[in-house]
Amino acid sequence: MSEPIVFVLNGPNLNLLGEREPAIYGSTTLAEIEAACRARAATQGLAIDFRQTNIEGVLIESVHEARKRAAGIIINPAGYSFTSVALLDSLKMFEGPKIELHISNIHRREEIYHRSLVSRAATAVVAGLGPSGYGIALDAMRLLLDERRT
Amino acid sequence: MSEPIVFVLNGPNLNLLGEREPAIYGSTTLAEIEAACRARAATQGLAIDFRQTNIEGVLIESVHEARKRAAGIIINPAGYSFTSVALLDSLKMFEGPKIELHISNIHRREEIYHRSLVSRAATAVVAGLGPSGYGIALDAMRLLLDERRT
Amino acid sequence: MSEPIVFVLNGPNLNLLGEREPAIYGSTTLAEIEAACRARAATQGLAIDFRQTNIEGVLIESVHEARKRAAGIIINPAGYSFTSVALLDSLKMFEGPKIELHISNIHRREEIYHRSLVSRAATAVVAGLGPSGYGIALDAMRLLLDERRT
Amino acid sequence: MSEPIVFVLNGPNLNLLGEREPAIYGSTTLAEIEAACRARAATQGLAIDFRQTNIEGVLIESVHEARKRAAGIIINPAGYSFTSVALLDSLKMFEGPKIELHISNIHRREEIYHRSLVSRAATAVVAGLGPSGYGIALDAMRLLLDERRT
Amino acid sequence: MSEPIVFVLNGPNLNLLGEREPAIYGSTTLAEIEAACRARAATQGLAIDFRQTNIEGVLIESVHEARKRAAGIIINPAGYSFTSVALLDSLKMFEGPKIELHISNIHRREEIYHRSLVSRAATAVVAGLGPSGYGIALDAMRLLLDERRT
Amino acid sequence: MSEPIVFVLNGPNLNLLGEREPAIYGSTTLAEIEAACRARAATQGLAIDFRQTNIEGVLIESVHEARKRAAGIIINPAGYSFTSVALLDSLKMFEGPKIELHISNIHRREEIYHRSLVSRAATAVVAGLGPSGYGIALDAMRLLLDERRT
Amino acid sequence: MSEPIVFVLNGPNLNLLGEREPAIYGSTTLAEIEAACRARAATQGLAIDFRQTNIEGVLIESVHEARKRAAGIIINPAGYSFTSVALLDSLKMFEGPKIELHISNIHRREEIYHRSLVSRAATAVVAGLGPSGYGIALDAMRLLLDERRT
Amino acid sequence: MSEPIVFVLNGPNLNLLGEREPAIYGSTTLAEIEAACRARAATQGLAIDFRQTNIEGVLIESVHEARKRAAGIIINPAGYSFTSVALLDSLKMFEGPKIELHISNIHRREEIYHRSLVSRAATAVVAGLGPSGYGIALDAMRLLLDERRT
Amino acid sequence: MSEPIVFVLNGPNLNLLGEREPAIYGSTTLAEIEAACRARAATQGLAIDFRQTNIEGVLIESVHEARKRAAGIIINPAGYSFTSVALLDSLKMFEGPKIELHISNIHRREEIYHRSLVSRAATAVVAGLGPSGYGIALDAMRLLLDERRT
Amino acid sequence: MSEPIVFVLNGPNLNLLGEREPAIYGSTTLAEIEAACRARAATQGLAIDFRQTNIEGVLIESVHEARKRAAGIIINPAGYSFTSVALLDSLKMFEGPKIELHISNIHRREEIYHRSLVSRAATAVVAGLGPSGYGIALDAMRLLLDERRT
Amino acid sequence: MSEPIVFVLNGPNLNLLGEREPAIYGSTTLAEIEAACRARAATQGLAIDFRQTNIEGVLIESVHEARKRAAGIIINPAGYSFTSVALLDSLKMFEGPKIELHISNIHRREEIYHRSLVSRAATAVVAGLGPSGYGIALDAMRLLLDERRT
Amino acid sequence: MSEPIVFVLNGPNLNLLGEREPAIYGSTTLAEIEAACRARAATQGLAIDFRQTNIEGVLIESVHEARKRAAGIIINPAGYSFTSVALLDSLKMFEGPKIELHISNIHRREEIYHRSLVSRAATAVVAGLGPSGYGIALDAMRLLLDERRT
Repeated sequence: MSEPIVFVLNGPNLNLLGEREPAIYGSTTLAEIEAACRARAATQGLAIDFRQTNIEGVLIESVHEARKRAAGIIINPAGYSFTSVALLDSLKMFEGPKIELHISNIHRREEIYHRSLVSRAATAVVAGLGPSGYGIALDAMRLLLDERRT
Repeated sequence: MSEPIVFVLNGPNLNLLGEREPAIYGSTTLAEIEAACRARAATQGLAIDFRQTNIEGVLIESVHEARKRAAGIIINPAGYSFTSVALLDSLKMFEGPKIELHISNIHRREEIYHRSLVSRAATAVVAGLGPSGYGIALDAMRLLLDERRT
Repeated sequence: MSEPIVFVLNGPNLNLLGEREPAIYGSTTLAEIEAACRARAATQGLAIDFRQTNIEGVLIESVHEARKRAAGIIINPAGYSFTSVALLDSLKMFEGPKIELHISNIHRREEIYHRSLVSRAATAVVAGLGPSGYGIALDAMRLLLDERRT
Repeated sequence: MSEPIVFVLNGPNLNLLGEREPAIYGSTTLAEIEAACRARAATQGLAIDFRQTNIEGVLIESVHEARKRAAGIIINPAGYSFTSVALLDSLKMFEGPKIELHISNIHRREEIYHRSLVSRAATAVVAGLGPSGYGIALDAMRLLLDERRT
Repeated sequence: MSEPIVFVLNGPNLNLLGEREPAIYGSTTLAEIEAACRARAATQGLAIDFRQTNIEGVLIESVHEARKRAAGIIINPAGYSFTSVALLDSLKMFEGPKIELHISNIHRREEIYHRSLVSRAATAVVAGLGPSGYGIALDAMRLLLDERRT
Repeated sequence: MSEPIVFVLNGPNLNLLGEREPAIYGSTTLAEIEAACRARAATQGLAIDFRQTNIEGVLIESVHEARKRAAGIIINPAGYSFTSVALLDSLKMFEGPKIELHISNIHRREEIYHRSLVSRAATAVVAGLGPSGYGIALDAMRLLLDERRT
Repeated sequence: MSEPIVFVLNGPNLNLLGEREPAIYGSTTLAEIEAACRARAATQGLAIDFRQTNIEGVLIESVHEARKRAAGIIINPAGYSFTSVALLDSLKMFEGPKIELHISNIHRREEIYHRSLVSRAATAVVAGLGPSGYGIALDAMRLLLDERRT
Repeated sequence: MSEPIVFVLNGPNLNLLGEREPAIYGSTTLAEIEAACRARAATQGLAIDFRQTNIEGVLIESVHEARKRAAGIIINPAGYSFTSVALLDSLKMFEGPKIELHISNIHRREEIYHRSLVSRAATAVVAGLGPSGYGIALDAMRLLLDERRT
Repeated sequence: MSEPIVFVLNGPNLNLLGEREPAIYGSTTLAEIEAACRARAATQGLAIDFRQTNIEGVLIESVHEARKRAAGIIINPAGYSFTSVALLDSLKMFEGPKIELHISNIHRREEIYHRSLVSRAATAVVAGLGPSGYGIALDAMRLLLDERRT
Repeated sequence: MSEPIVFVLNGPNLNLLGEREPAIYGSTTLAEIEAACRARAATQGLAIDFRQTNIEGVLIESVHEARKRAAGIIINPAGYSFTSVALLDSLKMFEGPKIELHISNIHRREEIYHRSLVSRAATAVVAGLGPSGYGIALDAMRLLLDERRT
Repeated sequence: MSEPIVFVLNGPNLNLLGEREPAIYGSTTLAEIEAACRARAATQGLAIDFRQTNIEGVLIESVHEARKRAAGIIINPAGYSFTSVALLDSLKMFEGPKIELHISNIHRREEIYHRSLVSRAATAVVAGLGPSGYGIALDAMRLLLDERRT
Repeated sequence: MSEPIVFVLNGPNLNLLGEREPAIYGSTTLAEIEAACRARAATQGLAIDFRQTNIEGVLIESVHEARKRAAGIIINPAGYSFTSVALLDSLKMFEGPKIELHISNIHRREEIYHRSLVSRAATAVVAGLGPSGYGIALDAMRLLLDERRT
């Protein structure tokens, strides 16, 4: 039997990770995160489909696609977390586990970053662990998938 | 003289209609709605241009296009209803009748679905009639177009 | 078998329709609307009971009466839309389809006209179609009644 | 010396008690409540004047009448609790004890049912005891009247 | 030529004036105010139609009636000032001068008495002059009517 | 015995009355208003001290001066109505009758003109009567002074 | 069969009852209330466990203990009513009837005393009956327990 | 060299885990969670000090103690998350990594559970992973401690 | 005659003073503050009872105790300032002078530190003077006690 | 070396101290306060420049002047505390210690007196100590100046 | 024909420019800005009248004067931007182009600096360009004046 | 050395400039603005890259591209100004000068157009100068670039 696929979806500006305010976000690039995710996923018996887009509608369409192909979604919606009802709606339609991930602890930032709309549809939220948060989220996804199976 | 064209524009996630929470939205698909619209329009002497997109900017560009080609717009902006000032601005520029349509009665849903920005530019609003709302909206559009002519 | 009855209830100030700010509301009177409704209802196999009152409690009592005699309610609550929890409560007790109707698009008016309490109990909302909205609402009622039957 | 009279005033929609959402409000009718109140009052040496109206102004006029005839008021203002400054004003003019009664615990319902204006003038509030709350309120009224006498 | 008629409309609880918290509202009764108004109107060449009601809808219907019979309206909406969109709507339809009157200065009272909806349609507002305010309002009405004529 | 003095205080921008948006405020100048006030006061047995200033602190000092010399204050605080706690404080210290006057009905203007801080200390408020409001306010002042004497 | 136990829990500052602002709260002490409760309970076939604590966590632990030992809870959470989500959470876990009691009518006090969090978990609320409220609450508890049994 | 100690602090009502609404929180008890934490910590070269308290001040004192003895803190503040500025202040004084943990996804619950004050001081937040979240948090703590060392 | 006693009460986290963010709060410890207070009190003819607790209920009980033993209270409620209605209630019951003290100027900190509930019951507030504020507060207490005596 | 100068600045209406609501503010005049300040300053080795103005801009200019001549500022901004961003800006430019002083405890007054803008720039705040607060503030200033020197 | 005059008005604290927080506002003084403005105006065929005042009323009077003498106004209202309805009112009366200028980008500052009332009357807003903004504003004024002429 | 490049980025609906509500926005088209910008830039020694898009994500990607190729950004974000946290985030990553431009003065429009999120990252804001604002912004950009160089 083939491995379950996890979509790892990244929203706007994350393509610049590592270049962007390294004092805050560290110097790890998104490519390095993807590589680390693949390595981690392999040890967990998971396959991953890792994507980044700056376009809200394209992010939504990845969630749509996940309905057919993925067992779970890890999503870092970045700036769309706080403003996109449409993204929230798309996630409500995905029935598997959904982990919302933020590299920084959004609750320590300015007011406009405090209220994630996406959290209303997420199974779980992981924030503030830096780039390592992706690996942690994959571990958590493994657990959530196992719990569903039993 | 050719029939007036009505743009029927559908926003994010509506491509999944019928698959999405059928208990709430029913099992009618968007393709079935389109077919029903075409049938209804024919009896009313209207032509329709039926579209769906998940991308805010593409939805806006359909509104732009309508300025040149359409006599009226029926729009179900879905999640963008509540967040898109840019969509609102585009609709303000369209001078024909504009009917905002929602499949469910948004006022019975959670708080974040209560305030449609698009309503500020709409001629009329129809909500809560399910997929049948599209046909009702086409009837209403026929009336609005007739009133303008007189 | 006798035709299903639809209550068409009109709230405060609507008795002055046609006289009231004709630039905004048109010159159609409520009597003309009633006549048009009767004609439309006849073609749909519906009977209507058309009423207007300026008194909140009397409007509520019509809703009560509808529980025994009507298959559906079309209500234009006018000014009570925005302030009457008691009217909302009465509508919650009516189990058939309830269509809230506004002649103008209330969302384009001043802030105090934006939040209809009645919408929380309505099956559907139709706003901004002018006096023609009544006919549209009757068509919609026909559909809602048919859907319930199936 | 004749028994003190207590007005037991019931606001909008309470005439439908027992028929209205019995799962929530129980199947006791208002007539049954009235009967139970009369029985209870008799044992307490109280006379009661039990009324229901759907009209805000009529409810206010009962409060006015109470100024001349009643020793105390038990009022279930239902939907007018949350919206009627006029009712509040009338109650401020009544100098005897005033008990506000709600059948359900309004604080567990939706936001719009949380802030009773009437509470600002009430001596006491009793909520959530179901139809039995009327009897409890009568006991409490007896106590309040006794305390005033001493 | 007959004298212009001014409707002097009084809202809920004002029938109790003089009895109600005399420390605040004085001991003048509404009947005395009516008598004083009649005397004052006579000297100004005005006729008055003086009414009081506790029912919102009846107050609205007096405003409707004023459209046909009155040159101006003086209205003390009491508790409905703060809650009645329907009353506001009725006043918007009256084209002559409208003076809103409050016996006390509502802005010195509790928060809930600060925002009169009726003020949005009133030509002028007079508050805090006690029962004498009625006479002052009649003088002001005379002026407003004269200014319109010129 | 000499006549009681009434201070008639005018706040910022009122020196331009008559020049300022005549469509709204009419073409009467402040000098004409002063003349009319003097004439009216003479017939009432009142003396007036009529002033205008654009400086908040100078307006406050006139209120201070009134404590020693005036029986009553009529004040049109214009823009300072909505922002000056200091002016409010000064008026709280004046014990005679204080009438707040606005030429237009401030409640029909934009939101920022709705909440007068000064109203919290005023005995009475008169708004929307145009330049004639000053005469009306003088009449009202006469009444308030007479009532105090009795 | 032994009598059902009712926990009567009292929050912060209630140990000073009788000493504290007697003009408002009366001169009855908490010990006297306890004695009265015991007497009343005896006549109702109830046992009571009467406690007072100033410590939020200890109050919570009494609620925990009630899960094992009590048939119902009467709680006067005093100042913690308005601030303790933790207390609310503990009450949500108790499945028997829960009556929230306040000696004064909190809705007539300052704003900060208006929103009880505890009310969201309470079966019923009794406020404003003074020390007698405890006896009334016991009667109400008896009723609620009886209703559950049937 | 001895293993770094991690304090695992649990706030109010968590002593009832497993008994409390098992449909939502699962049937795992806090003792089982502690056992699982110990096992996990052992494999990571961490020692843990696992505590639960219902008293805000005792929770604060555990944070104080952590300043001297612990390398990191994992805290599930439960109800105090939303109300305790004092707990927030104590956490600001702890310089090592601090992970805030919630068993459920608080953002999907009622409004009062949305704004954790504690998040303002937390390094990272993990919510919605159920009892497994503790193990995930320990893994995350290991990572955060390792990153600090390098 | 013995010296009047002043309770100097310190709330949560103040036991760590001197260790806690010395850049902000200075390096003076609470023990040093107590010593300085004792010295200052001696010169003023005051005795002090100096306490610190992290538990809200214990702080409240010290206020209770003060009712019997103390002439005045100086209280630094730290984090409980902003959240404890129960503490506010206890202070309302203390009739002598009450000085609220904050080491830093809370109004220059984050929003959540701006609104002290305790200030509503305090006679006076002293904030921003650092550890020296305690001595200043003792001087102020001496003055307040002297003023009461005269 | 000459003594450091402290500016003691008094805002609007304070010239009337002693005359103004003596029940609240006492009967001490501003001249008496000035005299007391001079005496106190002399014992502390401070010179004072004591001023009062009702004009916001003049108060601001005193702050400007203080930048060149004063070591510290004690300011009682009275009504401008709550409304003057300009005064706040001027104080931000003064680098020495700044003590904001209020004679009454503003937090016990009406809502509009709760939020001092000036507090955002003040080093310290002293409120509620009556006229004695000036002497206390001078003591505090002496301390703050000494701490800066070390 | 003489050159059009532009009033360049500067509000409170701007007299200290160059001295005030040079890290933020630079070290250019207002005199240097005036000199630069004069030079720039000369090349544009404009005359300027450059003023600064700390007094709100004096600033208003300059706007009044501009009505007679100036073709346009450039105004840096500083702290009065956010609080002065009176200044806003005066600007509404000036019919030529009005440019509001801020040296810093106010939207990046604290909340209280975000909402300029003056912007509601300004033709254009220029913010964040430092002292150079004055020259830019003069260029813009030239353009606006030219556009009006055509 | 080649000329510095300035990105001139235009958001949604600006492609319709000149066609869109010419009474408000004038009849200049975006192509004409681009031509004028090129001419102006040439005289300033700047090169420009002029773009328009209706898609939020594409606008963000232009900002990304600017990081590598542009010395400064002039951006008219139109409707995305008020809703796009993602666009704000992208601008925070661009280190050169950023000028936000609006053709109309957004502060004079409806409430929803008042709060630009983009302003939080902009160096400067220019609004209300019509199409000429682009040229002014280029002049301002030249200044900002020159200031950085020195």
